[in-house]
Amino acid sequence: MRVTVLNGPNLNLLGTREPEIYGRATLAQIEELTRGRAAALRVTLTWHQTNHEGQLVELVQALPGGADGALINAAALTHTSIALRDALLAVRVPFVEIHLTNILARDAARRQSVLADLAVGIVAGFGPRSYVLGLDALVEHLRAGD
Amino acid sequence: MRVTVLNGPNLNLLGTREPEIYGRATLAQIEELTRGRAAALRVTLTWHQTNHEGQLVELVQALPGGADGALINAAALTHTSIALRDALLAVRVPFVEIHLTNILARDAARRQSVLADLAVGIVAGFGPRSYVLGLDALVEHLRAGD
Amino acid sequence: MRVTVLNGPNLNLLGTREPEIYGRATLAQIEELTRGRAAALRVTLTWHQTNHEGQLVELVQALPGGADGALINAAALTHTSIALRDALLAVRVPFVEIHLTNILARDAARRQSVLADLAVGIVAGFGPRSYVLGLDALVEHLRAGD
Amino acid sequence: MRVTVLNGPNLNLLGTREPEIYGRATLAQIEELTRGRAAALRVTLTWHQTNHEGQLVELVQALPGGADGALINAAALTHTSIALRDALLAVRVPFVEIHLTNILARDAARRQSVLADLAVGIVAGFGPRSYVLGLDALVEHLRAGD
Amino acid sequence: MRVTVLNGPNLNLLGTREPEIYGRATLAQIEELTRGRAAALRVTLTWHQTNHEGQLVELVQALPGGADGALINAAALTHTSIALRDALLAVRVPFVEIHLTNILARDAARRQSVLADLAVGIVAGFGPRSYVLGLDALVEHLRAGD
Amino acid sequence: MRVTVLNGPNLNLLGTREPEIYGRATLAQIEELTRGRAAALRVTLTWHQTNHEGQLVELVQALPGGADGALINAAALTHTSIALRDALLAVRVPFVEIHLTNILARDAARRQSVLADLAVGIVAGFGPRSYVLGLDALVEHLRAGD
Amino acid sequence: MRVTVLNGPNLNLLGTREPEIYGRATLAQIEELTRGRAAALRVTLTWHQTNHEGQLVELVQALPGGADGALINAAALTHTSIALRDALLAVRVPFVEIHLTNILARDAARRQSVLADLAVGIVAGFGPRSYVLGLDALVEHLRAGD
Amino acid sequence: MRVTVLNGPNLNLLGTREPEIYGRATLAQIEELTRGRAAALRVTLTWHQTNHEGQLVELVQALPGGADGALINAAALTHTSIALRDALLAVRVPFVEIHLTNILARDAARRQSVLADLAVGIVAGFGPRSYVLGLDALVEHLRAGD
Amino acid sequence: MRVTVLNGPNLNLLGTREPEIYGRATLAQIEELTRGRAAALRVTLTWHQTNHEGQLVELVQALPGGADGALINAAALTHTSIALRDALLAVRVPFVEIHLTNILARDAARRQSVLADLAVGIVAGFGPRSYVLGLDALVEHLRAGD
Amino acid sequence: MRVTVLNGPNLNLLGTREPEIYGRATLAQIEELTRGRAAALRVTLTWHQTNHEGQLVELVQALPGGADGALINAAALTHTSIALRDALLAVRVPFVEIHLTNILARDAARRQSVLADLAVGIVAGFGPRSYVLGLDALVEHLRAGD
Amino acid sequence: MRVTVLNGPNLNLLGTREPEIYGRATLAQIEELTRGRAAALRVTLTWHQTNHEGQLVELVQALPGGADGALINAAALTHTSIALRDALLAVRVPFVEIHLTNILARDAARRQSVLADLAVGIVAGFGPRSYVLGLDALVEHLRAGD
Amino acid sequence: MRVTVLNGPNLNLLGTREPEIYGRATLAQIEELTRGRAAALRVTLTWHQTNHEGQLVELVQALPGGADGALINAAALTHTSIALRDALLAVRVPFVEIHLTNILARDAARRQSVLADLAVGIVAGFGPRSYVLGLDALVEHLRAGD
Repeated sequence: MRVTVLNGPNLNLLGTREPEIYGRATLAQIEELTRGRAAALRVTLTWHQTNHEGQLVELVQALPGGADGALINAAALTHTSIALRDALLAVRVPFVEIHLTNILARDAARRQSVLADLAVGIVAGFGPRSYVLGLDALVEHLRAGD
Repeated sequence: MRVTVLNGPNLNLLGTREPEIYGRATLAQIEELTRGRAAALRVTLTWHQTNHEGQLVELVQALPGGADGALINAAALTHTSIALRDALLAVRVPFVEIHLTNILARDAARRQSVLADLAVGIVAGFGPRSYVLGLDALVEHLRAGD
Repeated sequence: MRVTVLNGPNLNLLGTREPEIYGRATLAQIEELTRGRAAALRVTLTWHQTNHEGQLVELVQALPGGADGALINAAALTHTSIALRDALLAVRVPFVEIHLTNILARDAARRQSVLADLAVGIVAGFGPRSYVLGLDALVEHLRAGD
Repeated sequence: MRVTVLNGPNLNLLGTREPEIYGRATLAQIEELTRGRAAALRVTLTWHQTNHEGQLVELVQALPGGADGALINAAALTHTSIALRDALLAVRVPFVEIHLTNILARDAARRQSVLADLAVGIVAGFGPRSYVLGLDALVEHLRAGD
Repeated sequence: MRVTVLNGPNLNLLGTREPEIYGRATLAQIEELTRGRAAALRVTLTWHQTNHEGQLVELVQALPGGADGALINAAALTHTSIALRDALLAVRVPFVEIHLTNILARDAARRQSVLADLAVGIVAGFGPRSYVLGLDALVEHLRAGD
Repeated sequence: MRVTVLNGPNLNLLGTREPEIYGRATLAQIEELTRGRAAALRVTLTWHQTNHEGQLVELVQALPGGADGALINAAALTHTSIALRDALLAVRVPFVEIHLTNILARDAARRQSVLADLAVGIVAGFGPRSYVLGLDALVEHLRAGD
Repeated sequence: MRVTVLNGPNLNLLGTREPEIYGRATLAQIEELTRGRAAALRVTLTWHQTNHEGQLVELVQALPGGADGALINAAALTHTSIALRDALLAVRVPFVEIHLTNILARDAARRQSVLADLAVGIVAGFGPRSYVLGLDALVEHLRAGD
Repeated sequence: MRVTVLNGPNLNLLGTREPEIYGRATLAQIEELTRGRAAALRVTLTWHQTNHEGQLVELVQALPGGADGALINAAALTHTSIALRDALLAVRVPFVEIHLTNILARDAARRQSVLADLAVGIVAGFGPRSYVLGLDALVEHLRAGD
Repeated sequence: MRVTVLNGPNLNLLGTREPEIYGRATLAQIEELTRGRAAALRVTLTWHQTNHEGQLVELVQALPGGADGALINAAALTHTSIALRDALLAVRVPFVEIHLTNILARDAARRQSVLADLAVGIVAGFGPRSYVLGLDALVEHLRAGD
Repeated sequence: MRVTVLNGPNLNLLGTREPEIYGRATLAQIEELTRGRAAALRVTLTWHQTNHEGQLVELVQALPGGADGALINAAALTHTSIALRDALLAVRVPFVEIHLTNILARDAARRQSVLADLAVGIVAGFGPRSYVLGLDALVEHLRAGD
Repeated sequence: MRVTVLNGPNLNLLGTREPEIYGRATLAQIEELTRGRAAALRVTLTWHQTNHEGQLVELVQALPGGADGALINAAALTHTSIALRDALLAVRVPFVEIHLTNILARDAARRQSVLADLAVGIVAGFGPRSYVLGLDALVEHLRAGD
Repeated sequence: MRVTVLNGPNLNLLGTREPEIYGRATLAQIEELTRGRAAALRVTLTWHQTNHEGQLVELVQALPGGADGALINAAALTHTSIALRDALLAVRVPFVEIHLTNILARDAARRQSVLADLAVGIVAGFGPRSYVLGLDALVEHLRAGD
């Protein structure tokens, strides 16, 4: 089973970016944590981060054939990118939406997602553990075949 | 470690209620699944379901002293109950908000929650597995002590 | 044929409550009038009134097996109770929404119903006769089998 | 006792117009059904259908002297015609608002009526039977003299 | 100098229609009053009333060549008729908007006009005298040539 | 008969202030024009202009005993001054609202008046002639005693 | 003179519930403070707290015959309960609305009350003293007989 | 193949009506241009213009049996006529919505259409050529049989 | 202890201004009533009324050094004056907001206050007694030193 | 004559992306169809597709000098890209807005365009034929020189 | 070159008013700082502060003839005063809008300005230095003669 | 002291892009002007322009270590880019927001900024001089160390 993880703008700054909100773990540490779980689940993991909406669109377009499912933390693009939404509508690869923070506990602009209604489900608010829980949920979903 | 699970109105009908949306598992089956996981995690689980807002308020009021954390699926009351919100504000017990369905993929009235900003995090959209993933997340959160 | 009539909060005060709006008939008199019609139509009638949303939810949950259809005057809960709506969605028993007054001629908050789109139809504005007309309509609907 | 029935735009198409919504009965069949009930109630019935707002306004203007009450199914004009509302305000003839479908279960634009607050009451959702029930309600209202 | 007066739906009912709002003068009496003033001002007056939006549109289309200016009381169509607005935009004949009542003192739906920004000016709230004052204003406007 | 004319902020600049909108007549010329008409109608005219909301409030408070009616062009305060509205509610002296321009043809903020629903009527859009027409209307209103 | 005090959901938690907002006094201490004042005013005081909307409705229904007036702190139900509003409309017993906090200084959802327009008046923001001041105001109101 | 062209209110004024917006071609010239193209495509063309909403409704009702498709420029009625929408829903004849101007480049009220979601497609902004392009598109659509 | 009472526009008209809403007591009588209570509480009272927003701003600016607290009935300025709000933010003197009427029972524009969130608390709806109750509340607040 | 065609994000997926909405033609097939028409019209065609907003901006910036006009299908960027709008405002090259689907028949977010008011006109809803019809319209527009 | 500086309500309190927002400099110190720069630029400076909207209006009315340009910090009146806006529209003297704080970083009510679209430009957020920068900008603007 | 200037989409077109709004100076000329001032202030200036949101995000991410402060004219991205906002939140480098035009005098969409509340301050409306004034303000801010 192959899973791709897509990370959006500014997530490369994790650990230094507003640590009182996002915590002190770097994206590399989160990747390592997630890869550990993936190994235990016998899942092949591909990991991307980009600050460019167009690249994120193309990474989504490349999912079919390359992955059975995806974890997507689109960061700021979660709230505004219709192009990303269109790409997800086009490829129809099952994905779980991930957020480090509980986005529903933040300001109004952060509370809305233009992607979430296309997701299998959402895991939000558990910091780096959101990635691991999301991976568990996605794998169970794919193995259940529903 | 003690965890209380609170289920709101109409969840006693699961399995027969709109199965094309909520699935065919009954609440008793979900309870059994969750108890299995709780045993594996060495967590003592208390389980409630009520159709009465006032009782749900009082079950929340009783959490301190009786539980270290809670899983709450408030069902219809998620969207309207300020009284439930006040009770959660008062007791300040950590809880994870659970939904069987991906509430962000449903109609506008279901997309808003008056409780979610008080939660540690949200797990939504994975059917009965939402309870298990939520329990995992809550226990890790409590053990990390953050 | 069995029909259950459900009456919501404050309808026990009819006759004394704002008689210039709701008229001088008591709920007991309306029940008697409706029972007279039910006898003529050879319908077994069950009659409830409650001020508790949770009880109304459970009375709706009990409809399957106990009634072929229902008349529901949810009073104030008409405008706000998603829990009642969920119960009606779950049981899928045909019902007619009844109002003593023409709710569309009243203030804005009273003009909206969170239940009405689930009803077979609506009868509103004819005082106690709304119940009799609603019963006629429900029985014809059930007998037509559509 | 004389009752006039006014039908608005496109109701002449009933039976072929969106039958999955409006049913298969033609307007002529509904007229026949209603005339049968009128005869039983010893009511003289006048029946009109027009696609022209101006004509509908003038039919309402002609009600005083020609009718003791009216049944009005203004169709699309229900939602937009202030001119029709003004005519009803001017003549002050008691009328019952009729709809074949449960307008509160349809899309938002159909849910609002600019006439309904002037009506004695509303009967909606029972197909052709809405006319018969509305006639019963109107006649009882007129005979009660209230 | 030639002036055409256009009256919209239901104004033929003046005197009997809601006299507590619109007064007891009939449209014929208002016409007579206005014709008296027109004679004093040496103005040729043409007078129309119609309940049909289409006819009102065509009466406006006929203004060029037939009138130097117009008084328009579009009644209910004031608030909704884009077609009437388009006709007025097309002919560009100067007109004064007339209302018997102070429309800004009435309910919200009556407070908006889709015609008023095309008018030379507005006279509202003086009952039948609104027509005479409007005629004075229009004639002065035309004679001033501005 | 005594009439007071009240003019609000910036009207002292008339003639130089945005002449393409407000025209080239000065407030003194408008006063002279209005006094001419008042003399012909045998009306005693008092004339005020102020840029201070508090003074305008006190001029309104002084109307009872000093005037039988008023013409009020509150200029910018038309759209925002609840204090002026309260003063007019308190004294209940009949007044006509005057505007040089057709306020309904201007931008949205200028289209709303917090005073107009208290006025006998409105005359707007005829430049300095609005004052003369308003005086005619007010005097007729007072003489008719309605 | 008899006065009933009604307290809504979660007020039983006072003293421990968000003390930085609601203070450290318990409901029992507030009751004692209020009873002291009642004794001084020779008023018989009845005191209730409930977390159930239906019970609060029935406590209001029981006011006529049992009390000359009421103090009502409906807590969270202040903002949403149409059923409570209907009960207050039905019984027409004079009451004063009480809030420990200055509700107009809190978040938007807390600023609106569906009950307040039925109250004699409001006392908000003085902590436990709000009850005593409200009792003073109610008693003066009842003794003045207005 | 038979195509009916329906033109709404004020289009009979084309050429003189606001030529800076709508151009200098008359409706007769546009008809001639469109008939030329229809001949080349071997299409039988029927052409109507009316200022009356009721007549437009009846022309739509007459489409089945008389035409294989339609071009509709409903002018002002595009933005407000639910009756016209109902007629189009009833007959289900394929049509293309035509506008001389780019309606999306005009004021807000002109930007919305209550008909457009029922159309095969829209051609707007090319003056008289919009009719020819719309005819091409409709004929291709009909010949493709999709 | 020194308390200043500030009264805003039109309160000098009390007794004659809309007595059905504001009662028949004059401001002088209310002042006398309040001074009586102040004497009993051994409070030095300063009393102002002004119709000018600028003066009210300057009276607030003068509070520090001259008063320990204030009662403020800003009348119409309650709803609109940001300048008054800024003055209150600047001086930070504790004050109680007073209203003769229950502002939450009045029209929407009167329901909002731009000052209230800065107040210690609100007393509204008890006529002249609102001042006395407000004085009691303020003095208790100041003596409690919280 | 030179025409550039610009295609926005995800259009490279045509044929596989939601074929029930966008059809089964690939972008290459649409390009071929459009090139065929261009040849017949003796137009030189340049064709681009990009998923990057920045590149689309730069392609628009390059239009002057390289093209006499453009067809633009900005896909998701149609609804949100102010940067693209600014580029189009800057270069002032005539363009036709193209959509495969009838955007006015889709969900609310798709109904709005931040580009359309800058276009010569719109062709929407005819699948791949939209490009051919748009090319016809653009060429006629350019040849007419208006 | 002559420049007038106008300061609105409560700016006389600078230094003591919310120093954590507005800083510790007094208005006299800001005046001194600005006069220093004016001397260096050979500009004659006139300085005003008032808490009265009417006086501010009249100070603006007096600008023509007395000043070549102005710096205006209208404080709270920035957000609400249409009268001030009208005065600025009337005199058409170039001015720069000044704010000590970055108004776009404050609460919603502070973010809107009814004056700013009439200004040459805005300088906000640099504390007392905003005046100096604004003076530089104004003088350069006046000397450039654009 | 090192300052980086970041320019967003389409600013490379300055001089030819809508010169009636943005003026005739090219970006190279503005750069030269700003470099002149930087030299006088002994500031090292780095200058960037990009049409790609992702690049702008990365240029912001690179600010720490490379610059003491920044001038940012994000052009169209000012109004929509949450990704840019997140980058600025992450790096916390002081910056001044620059606009050539007075954005508060433009259409509604241009009036809002998602960046401005993070800025030290704003300078807008002075054409190329906005950059020089912004540089002055930034340098003074950095030297003052506040």
